[in-house]
Amino acid sequence: MKLDDADLLESSGQQVRGNDRSGRVQGASEQRAPLSLEGRLMRQLLTSLGDPPLEITLWNGESITAGAGPAVAGFRIADRSSLLKLFINPNLYFGEAYSDGSIEVEGDLVRLSEIVYVCRRRPDTPYSRRMNRAARWINRGRRNTLSTARDNIHHHYDLGNEFYSLWLDRQMSYTCAFFPAREMTLEQAQIAKMDLVCRKLWLRPEETVVEAGCGWGALALHIATHYGARVKAFNISREQIAYARSRARALDLERRVEFIEDDYRNIDGRYDAFVSIGMLEHVGPSHYDELGRVIDRCLASNGRGLLHSIGQNQPAALNAWIEKRIFPGAYPPTLREMTAILEPQGFSVIDVENLRLHYALTLEHWLRRFEDARGRVSAMYDERFVRAWRLYLAGSLAAFNTGELQLFQVLFARGDSNEVPWTRAHLYDQSAAG
Amino acid sequence: MKLDDADLLESSGQQVRGNDRSGRVQGASEQRAPLSLEGRLMRQLLTSLGDPPLEITLWNGESITAGAGPAVAGFRIADRSSLLKLFINPNLYFGEAYSDGSIEVEGDLVRLSEIVYVCRRRPDTPYSRRMNRAARWINRGRRNTLSTARDNIHHHYDLGNEFYSLWLDRQMSYTCAFFPAREMTLEQAQIAKMDLVCRKLWLRPEETVVEAGCGWGALALHIATHYGARVKAFNISREQIAYARSRARALDLERRVEFIEDDYRNIDGRYDAFVSIGMLEHVGPSHYDELGRVIDRCLASNGRGLLHSIGQNQPAALNAWIEKRIFPGAYPPTLREMTAILEPQGFSVIDVENLRLHYALTLEHWLRRFEDARGRVSAMYDERFVRAWRLYLAGSLAAFNTGELQLFQVLFARGDSNEVPWTRAHLYDQSAAG
Repeated sequence: MKLDDADLLESSGQQVRGNDRSGRVQGASEQRAPLSLEGRLMRQLLTSLGDPPLEITLWNGESITAGAGPAVAGFRIADRSSLLKLFINPNLYFGEAYSDGSIEVEGDLVRLSEIVYVCRRRPDTPYSRRMNRAARWINRGRRNTLSTARDNIHHHYDLGNEFYSLWLDRQMSYTCAFFPAREMTLEQAQIAKMDLVCRKLWLRPEETVVEAGCGWGALALHIATHYGARVKAFNISREQIAYARSRARALDLERRVEFIEDDYRNIDGRYDAFVSIGMLEHVGPSHYDELGRVIDRCLASNGRGLLHSIGQNQPAALNAWIEKRIFPGAYPPTLREMTAILEPQGFSVIDVENLRLHYALTLEHWLRRFEDARGRVSAMYDERFVRAWRLYLAGSLAAFNTGELQLFQVLFARGDSNEVPWTRAHLYDQSAAG
Repeated sequence: MKLDDADLLESSGQQVRGNDRSGRVQGASEQRAPLSLEGRLMRQLLTSLGDPPLEITLWNGESITAGAGPAVAGFRIADRSSLLKLFINPNLYFGEAYSDGSIEVEGDLVRLSEIVYVCRRRPDTPYSRRMNRAARWINRGRRNTLSTARDNIHHHYDLGNEFYSLWLDRQMSYTCAFFPAREMTLEQAQIAKMDLVCRKLWLRPEETVVEAGCGWGALALHIATHYGARVKAFNISREQIAYARSRARALDLERRVEFIEDDYRNIDGRYDAFVSIGMLEHVGPSHYDELGRVIDRCLASNGRGLLHSIGQNQPAALNAWIEKRIFPGAYPPTLREMTAILEPQGFSVIDVENLRLHYALTLEHWLRRFEDARGRVSAMYDERFVRAWRLYLAGSLAAFNTGELQLFQVLFARGDSNEVPWTRAHLYDQSAAG
């Protein structure tokens, strides 16, 4: 267990409250002068987040701690205005203030994020009560019409292939990798992920595959190279499609892999397999029925389908800052919400695998590479961009490590097809490695 | 593919309708004298079921066929009253009439059931239209209070251990087996199923396990014997608990396995693992939230849980005859419905496996053993009982083979627990076979 929740709980808020009740005064902050109004606001914010063991320093030098024992991380706030915004909407303004430098983190950014995620979901924090109340009314992603979808995707994926090449693996897979052994390199783990997907899909030579949301084309090219199937791969990111086409040319695979700059809703034809890796987050639950009808239209009678998506255990809005600055229109579904794609069409779910901890490890690699390439990123973008991306990668790593986010791979077939693998043993057969 | 749907479709109704449109008269029945009123009713019933290629013979010798080409099976109806009941409610009265001998099947009962299941779900049959309309209002199983649950379970599971011992495996596992290789014996496959469950649950020596609905105790005893864990196993079937206790005594496992005659709602204590194999079918969706709260109450912070249940791809009422005569109060949930147990408590789904075709093979073994033991069953029960059980086993085999029913194994943990297996490779590691 990476993050020791039990230790954390013991060292933080619960003990302080115990001391408060006994009337004894303990802990660094308690021995100081009474807090200013701003200090009390900050204290209240920490309480509402379940008393994470953090030390917050204000512009006036005042220090606020929560929890007993030493703080495991903390941050400095540069001015009153940033504090007030943070108090009003911490989910949005922590990211804003971190990006523009009004908040400077002291200690490890990942650890700080993990501690906040773990503490705020304790039963009876204002955060967890609000989450429970709000679960029915949350924003499950905007309506993604053909044109807003294009804008949203352009916002993130067309930042420039060179930027992504600085910290992704060589084949530019920008989705969760699969590490059969933890010590694998990122390159090996992304190839292992593609093999896992192809084996789950039970691909055989000369079969046809349609891919919805193909990124920079790594999976489509892997399928054609190693499984002998033919692929039509759809994507609405212009830069990604251009990159993928140039790779197909270089590999002389243009007759086996076709990259199409179009929306998943415009997929036509019939295929032996449907695959979508990391697109569903951008689809939005209000379009799941539509996606199910697209799959129903294009999957052959004995075809197999696989959906790979970031998910959640319970419905909750995506972090407001991530939705605003990083992934507009995105929403990570629960497994229950994902079934809304498949159940109306009578598809049969064959296999679901949760690769949450593999995404945490993938993000460790990405964050390390991003930091290693910091000089080159700084030469391409301003400091606000660098800080925003660091926070996005660190916060995502923390989210997967603490169970805020999940990664679901869902394999399915038509309800009346018996052309499915007899067991899953072939997924783990070393002698048949792709 | 066991049942060749494509061949079936080609040889049946669609072709007949084509001929009708062309005005040509073909097929055995078409060359005979005009049908009687009863014959036309039967023809209308077959049409409403999607024209399965069957030949039905009435008490007056009249023969009705649907589909072109030869009928692959058929049945004789003994009297007008049975035909009328069948016409009014085929789902209920086929079973009733078969049990009392008013219907005699000609050909293979499994094949007949499969053909009806496949044909009736064709788009635009009255059956499939009615199913689509009724999906929102179906009976998802009665309310199972503590006392009705006891009555329902007594109805089926307390028929006598001797009866079940005639056709189950030696350890009396009355749930889907797992056949790593198809040619395994039923005994081997039931042991392989128990090992699969234990490996998924990641059981380690001296851990504690609670089992909800333990049948005749095979899994609880297997866990204690081969995984060194301690088990509390709950069941409300008196005969099953008595049998399980006597096995625990014989194996000298009474200090490691406790069999408790009580309802799952009365489980107390905290455990490293929660397991329930084939009980959920009897719980009913209106009690899923309650079951989720029981699991939440009893699962340790790093515990794992597994639910193994017959399921469906889309909500549909259990066959009316099965619900009336075999499994009162039962309902097979969709995967979406199963998430209603886990999502409200924030559990994280780690792994879902659909073992549908393994249940079809399990039922092939049971049906063969049941037929082999027919003489002994007849000595214990009347002919109506023997026929009802044959139909139940054959119809269930057909239902799993054609995708009417599914078998879901759902593995889960607490949302914030990182104490979960890194991959699933250990499930298929031959060198570690239990």
